[in-house]
Amino acid sequence: MSPLPTCQTLLLEPRNGVLFITLNRPESRNAMSLQMVAELRSVLAAVRDRRSIRALVLRGAGGHFCAGGDLKDMAGARTRGSAAYRELNRAFGALLEEAQQTPQVLVCVLQGAVLGGGFGLACVSDIAIAEHSAQFGMPETGLGLLPAQIAPFVVRRIGLTQARRLTLTAARFDGAEALHLGLVHFVEADPRALEERLEQQLSQVLRCAPGANAATKALLLASVDQPLGPLLDQAAEDFAQAVTGAEGLEGTLAFVQKRKPAWAS
Amino acid sequence: MSPLPTCQTLLLEPRNGVLFITLNRPESRNAMSLQMVAELRSVLAAVRDRRSIRALVLRGAGGHFCAGGDLKDMAGARTRGSAAYRELNRAFGALLEEAQQTPQVLVCVLQGAVLGGGFGLACVSDIAIAEHSAQFGMPETGLGLLPAQIAPFVVRRIGLTQARRLTLTAARFDGAEALHLGLVHFVEADPRALEERLEQQLSQVLRCAPGANAATKALLLASVDQPLGPLLDQAAEDFAQAVTGAEGLEGTLAFVQKRKPAWAS
Amino acid sequence: MSPLPTCQTLLLEPRNGVLFITLNRPESRNAMSLQMVAELRSVLAAVRDRRSIRALVLRGAGGHFCAGGDLKDMAGARTRGSAAYRELNRAFGALLEEAQQTPQVLVCVLQGAVLGGGFGLACVSDIAIAEHSAQFGMPETGLGLLPAQIAPFVVRRIGLTQARRLTLTAARFDGAEALHLGLVHFVEADPRALEERLEQQLSQVLRCAPGANAATKALLLASVDQPLGPLLDQAAEDFAQAVTGAEGLEGTLAFVQKRKPAWAS
Repeated sequence: MSPLPTCQTLLLEPRNGVLFITLNRPESRNAMSLQMVAELRSVLAAVRDRRSIRALVLRGAGGHFCAGGDLKDMAGARTRGSAAYRELNRAFGALLEEAQQTPQVLVCVLQGAVLGGGFGLACVSDIAIAEHSAQFGMPETGLGLLPAQIAPFVVRRIGLTQARRLTLTAARFDGAEALHLGLVHFVEADPRALEERLEQQLSQVLRCAPGANAATKALLLASVDQPLGPLLDQAAEDFAQAVTGAEGLEGTLAFVQKRKPAWAS
Repeated sequence: MSPLPTCQTLLLEPRNGVLFITLNRPESRNAMSLQMVAELRSVLAAVRDRRSIRALVLRGAGGHFCAGGDLKDMAGARTRGSAAYRELNRAFGALLEEAQQTPQVLVCVLQGAVLGGGFGLACVSDIAIAEHSAQFGMPETGLGLLPAQIAPFVVRRIGLTQARRLTLTAARFDGAEALHLGLVHFVEADPRALEERLEQQLSQVLRCAPGANAATKALLLASVDQPLGPLLDQAAEDFAQAVTGAEGLEGTLAFVQKRKPAWAS
Repeated sequence: MSPLPTCQTLLLEPRNGVLFITLNRPESRNAMSLQMVAELRSVLAAVRDRRSIRALVLRGAGGHFCAGGDLKDMAGARTRGSAAYRELNRAFGALLEEAQQTPQVLVCVLQGAVLGGGFGLACVSDIAIAEHSAQFGMPETGLGLLPAQIAPFVVRRIGLTQARRLTLTAARFDGAEALHLGLVHFVEADPRALEERLEQQLSQVLRCAPGANAATKALLLASVDQPLGPLLDQAAEDFAQAVTGAEGLEGTLAFVQKRKPAWAS
């Protein structure tokens, strides 16, 4: 198994089946630089086939999740013209695609600024936990720009009806509204309650079998845009493999024996 | 018109345009056996073209809706290997597909355990009424398995954002949370309120024309995954047929005469 | 630039970048006549390429938004048979398609009757503001008819789960329920609060760049049914054009200079 990549913009801490990833550019409220995008993509690639890492927790250093794109990269692209902007923008979309598809359970802990690109990352999480005081928004249209790579993920996350109002008014809103919109799953009053919720959710994730979770997540994502009949055929095949595989044998045996399965202990 | 099939696992009671179907294996909390799947499918087939049955009410005997798959069938499949599991699993998916498409209005009354396959059935109802104390959940990933035939219907029911958290944490939740998630339409405090809500909703269904309801339901289901233009063309054709047909003539005449249409009296 | 069309059934009032459109047939609660459909379509066509009109506000005269289709047109079609009904119905669907795609931000102010066709118009708005006392519903199935052109837009607006209950029971509901269902974005207690919310939302829309908003709206609509990869490629291209275009240059410069951009002043 290849080691985790060495990163300048991220702190990586594997612990008890969970990889904690901290966006670590607090001086710019963890603005998403090109380097950070590249490092996140390399981390996702490194863990993809590693079933011993069962969840990824993504959070920001210094009280903010991520304030959006990095202005220095934007300035750098300016000197190189339109194609540079296109590549810069598309690379972030590729990160979102890969994060959406990661076999691990992706948990986002959302505090402070959750803007632009940070908003996009929140939209591909499996579990999103926000502090009440977090500030969500897509400010792009107010700057004469588009939330280009983000918008398609926002529509998949909260639907067209809410996405259109939020983007076309560049609305700002807090964690409670994020819960109401279905953007996050939990909102908590303060950092301590946020930690408790995180621990609770991770312990629930770890009760689920790693391989079954990865296969279920792939099935859910396929369910969004694939025709139902073939999907159900494939799902039946997946089910047969799971129930006759190691996890299924252990899980059903543990159930009969009224004990925890091996992966949950 | 063919008679209703004779069933061992279901109680069938047609009354006033409504067929009440009770899952009747209370000793196993109405676990969904292969026989029960086959009998439900035969009932759906028997009523499909019978416009005199305008709604189906699905509920469970003994205070539970349905606790999921039947362990005896699973044990039986074990001796026959992987293909048997695949068929067992896919047959339940076929039931969900047919229940989703049934021309009648499908009402689910959800009490006690609404787990696994029971959760799947709730996801294809037109009207879902839950008791506050009901226990919802998909426990599969905790057993090393997938909610294989269920997951695609869960995504269509409540969207990807909620489906991913529920499945990847094997979360349990009550009727109030089911309402918040958009899984059910009503939550009631006790069995008496549940019955009142059921009667109220059935009386509203019976005010609507049977043929118009069946055509509208087909249009809604097609709207999920068919392109808009051709769908609207077909819908205009359906409208023209309805307005010049028996129901449309009676309905618009009754409206002008300020009386109830024939189907509502 | 062609002038706005002359209309019999609509009041048109352009003011400060916003075109206020009032459905003006209060004697029939603004029932959607064929003439009104044609006039709305001609207004949308006239403003389509006019970036100086940045938002459209659609409301009804006399305390009602729109009570549905016009009975006189229906009676007229009767004498001409089935094809006339089909055309009548499809023309309204074409209006909904065009209103959904209009590059301007479409705001609906919903009071009194929001029924049938009026319900459909609410479903294609970018921002929907309802008075608490508004009455929403699709009464078609109670008349032996289908909400034919409306249903596909309702599914896109609030999802299948809620659309099926509402249509198959011909349910009536108020503004608070419309907010709960995700049909509208705001509900207000009285006409004065409604006006204040409208002004607030319009001022937020006007802070966003007109071209960026139009491009973002097109991207959101494409996100509903187009595959993700090509969509993100196109979005990156759109982003590069925006950031190197007049709006992007002005917007980012204004941001650095801590002043309002030209379009917001």
